Amino acid sequence: MATEPKIILLAHGSSDRRWCETFEALAEPTLKAVPGAVVAYMELAEPSMEQVVAEAAAGGCRSFTVLPLFLAAGRHLRKDVPAMIADMEAAHGVEIELAPPVGENPELGLAIRDVVTQALARQPA
Amino acid sequence: MATEPKIILLAHGSSDRRWCETFEALAEPTLKAVPGAVVAYMELAEPSMEQVVAEAAAGGCRSFTVLPLFLAAGRHLRKDVPAMIADMEAAHGVEIELAPPVGENPELGLAIRDVVTQALARQPA
Repeated sequence: MATEPKIILLAHGSSDRRWCETFEALAEPTLKAVPGAVVAYMELAEPSMEQVVAEAAAGGCRSFTVLPLFLAAGRHLRKDVPAMIADMEAAHGVEIELAPPVGENPELGLAIRDVVTQALARQPA
Repeated sequence: MATEPKIILLAHGSSDRRWCETFEALAEPTLKAVPGAVVAYMELAEPSMEQVVAEAAAGGCRSFTVLPLFLAAGRHLRKDVPAMIADMEAAHGVEIELAPPVGENPELGLAIRDVVTQALARQPA
């Protein structure tokens, strides 16, 4: 039996394969730390959030948490994704919780500071 | 005399003020750590990257580094922003280096893992 709730790391998606590879690399430490977590895309790439939910629901999973790999919540996370979630809940008889985007956690700001200061230290003077 | 190169933390931008507030909060530790760094937006919010470059160039700054607060490089960072940079270099006689997006640094993946595992630990069982 799969672990519930199923954890979906939601990325925006792009037709550019390199975009998806960056998100897969970004998600790798999380996927190793969280059993059963998967990456899914809002649009333009596979697996889509709908594919992941439909497949897990068919396998008996009733509860999902969507964790957006977004730096901030704009129209997608305030309107499009909640609408997609409502549709999937109705279609599959499941419960899906939408968590805040990872960028709303202050820890991301500290990591960005470290990345930026490292990048600047590597620049030629 | 301002520090050179001037550091621009580039966010996407949105007409939703809450989006910009999230980026301002995300950038705050970096702004404290990097003298003279500023946040600017690619589109839909102010200050725009063009405004920041034009103003600093008028004040005598000739060298800029743009550090994208993006998780990955898609069309915006591969096409739109380089085109904007080329236009600004020509218009203002300045040099602008475009750094990789912060999300391409593996440290961001570790921070995302920590944020996600914290978020899941807070959920009711």
